[in-house]
Amino acid sequence: MSLGEFELIKQYFQQQSGAPGVALGIGDDCALLTVPLGQQLAVSMDTSIADVHFPADGEPDLIAERALRVNISDLAAMGAEPLWFTLGLTLPDADPQWLQAFSQGLFRVAREYGIALVGGDTTRGKLSITIQVHGAVAEGKALLRSRASEGDQIFVTGPVGDGAAALAVMKQQLSAASMMTDYLMERYYRPQPQVVAGQLLTNFCAAAIDISDGLVADLGHICEQSGVGADLHLERIPLSEAVRQLVSFEQGIDWALSGGDDYQLCFTVPKAQVQQLETLVSTGKIVAHHIGEITAGNGVSCWHNSNPVVPSGKGFQHFGGQEALS
Amino acid sequence: MSLGEFELIKQYFQQQSGAPGVALGIGDDCALLTVPLGQQLAVSMDTSIADVHFPADGEPDLIAERALRVNISDLAAMGAEPLWFTLGLTLPDADPQWLQAFSQGLFRVAREYGIALVGGDTTRGKLSITIQVHGAVAEGKALLRSRASEGDQIFVTGPVGDGAAALAVMKQQLSAASMMTDYLMERYYRPQPQVVAGQLLTNFCAAAIDISDGLVADLGHICEQSGVGADLHLERIPLSEAVRQLVSFEQGIDWALSGGDDYQLCFTVPKAQVQQLETLVSTGKIVAHHIGEITAGNGVSCWHNSNPVVPSGKGFQHFGGQEALS
Repeated sequence: MSLGEFELIKQYFQQQSGAPGVALGIGDDCALLTVPLGQQLAVSMDTSIADVHFPADGEPDLIAERALRVNISDLAAMGAEPLWFTLGLTLPDADPQWLQAFSQGLFRVAREYGIALVGGDTTRGKLSITIQVHGAVAEGKALLRSRASEGDQIFVTGPVGDGAAALAVMKQQLSAASMMTDYLMERYYRPQPQVVAGQLLTNFCAAAIDISDGLVADLGHICEQSGVGADLHLERIPLSEAVRQLVSFEQGIDWALSGGDDYQLCFTVPKAQVQQLETLVSTGKIVAHHIGEITAGNGVSCWHNSNPVVPSGKGFQHFGGQEALS
Repeated sequence: MSLGEFELIKQYFQQQSGAPGVALGIGDDCALLTVPLGQQLAVSMDTSIADVHFPADGEPDLIAERALRVNISDLAAMGAEPLWFTLGLTLPDADPQWLQAFSQGLFRVAREYGIALVGGDTTRGKLSITIQVHGAVAEGKALLRSRASEGDQIFVTGPVGDGAAALAVMKQQLSAASMMTDYLMERYYRPQPQVVAGQLLTNFCAAAIDISDGLVADLGHICEQSGVGADLHLERIPLSEAVRQLVSFEQGIDWALSGGDDYQLCFTVPKAQVQQLETLVSTGKIVAHHIGEITAGNGVSCWHNSNPVVPSGKGFQHFGGQEALS
């Protein structure tokens, strides 16, 4: 049987890995995987569609990097260790150069996070990328959105708002010096899933979420699922040097609150454990910015220098997201 | 926060299941799953695209049924027990009637096979459905494509060629009495993944594959991965009553060999275990038609009443498959 286009595409993704727990990889009806003893399997699936979630004419290796990184971020938000992923790739055609670059970007991230490609499907159509990630977390140790309690302190692992700033540059609503553009594009296409932070946080039994839709929407999910409220102190929210130089504080904060695509973790720590977190921070094991506290109320309340303020946005909703890049 | 279109869509798929092994279902960054002790996890992902893999204007409940059944068939081909699935659904719009019917069809199959929806993603775009199924199979017991040996006998679990016949009816290349059309549409949209047969077969350590691309292509995969050949006796291949009445023997066999979309299992059994299989057949626990034997050669050789013949087709290749329905 001669190799069809379909078989050729597969070759770009066939890496003999011998990765941990992979009893059988690509090439049979299913992959066979062994979950480590005493661990739960954490799975998450995300679809990225050209010109909705990323520009169709973007660099293929960066498109791949972003798609996989964004998915790994969901494992980070559960405190899970990345193990395996599957790829559902829909392509308008089988362009060898594009496929070469795409697969290189994909495997670059896979190596960085120790996650192995174990299966998937390739079909013809408008470019879209569905990835499912699989990770392991000790039973009962996963970080849940539903575990926040009144009095918990709220933290983020790094600057927020960069995702929205990058989009503004791409949409040419904002011009920036090339150094800043480079930084923002890097943050957009190569977000850094907070895997190590997530795993360290499992020792505090905190609530956590990754910031994909903006602080208000994502912290809002924690509030909703925990049955609590949150006070957010806007002056404490970390903005990157690039955002601070490019736009006003108000604009930067608006991006942080409702922009999304940042992939930092937002998490809560019970008061009694904050000291433990501070030790990790002071020894450089984790970055954490203290931005607020969980209350007995409901929803996210914003404060600026102790005055109540109402944020203008409500967070980026992917299913209305076609406007995001057009 | 008001519910967006995105949230509304999610509601159609939010079923409180309390399904086995689901520590945490839809609603957090990941689902948390517990694989039964001593079992391996079998996973498979498939994408179905409107007008490539199914007609876009098909009944939404049947589109859903077919998409999930086809995926479960991959678990059957490994001898795995279906446990969980994830759904990546891309939709042109959020039509409540369509979503209602689609989710009903989906959960009908989910209940029938005891498989629980645990996560996924919804995006806007041309209709496409990516499903990943997760099953469990005892360590070392999975049915692999690579386990066929010279002398093994080759079987199929039921009639093949119906998938191609159904496509011919849909493409209006063939007119048929309504009873036959009903039968073929049923076979196309509601294929019966051979889950029970697959699990029973794990006791014979046989090679197996599900027939999605036609007998020649799929048995060819077993040959290739096992480093063997196969003799196929065309007069023994089971054709349905509908196919036999509608078309010539030659056309029926051509569909069986190269049509695909049948989702029967093709499997091999070592001679010493054939008696065991026959006992299962005679007690009605499994259906098996004896269609050939594994040889020391390579590739699939076809015979008709002991004369060598060359099949005209090479099996349906999904990645060129846009012609399949147009």
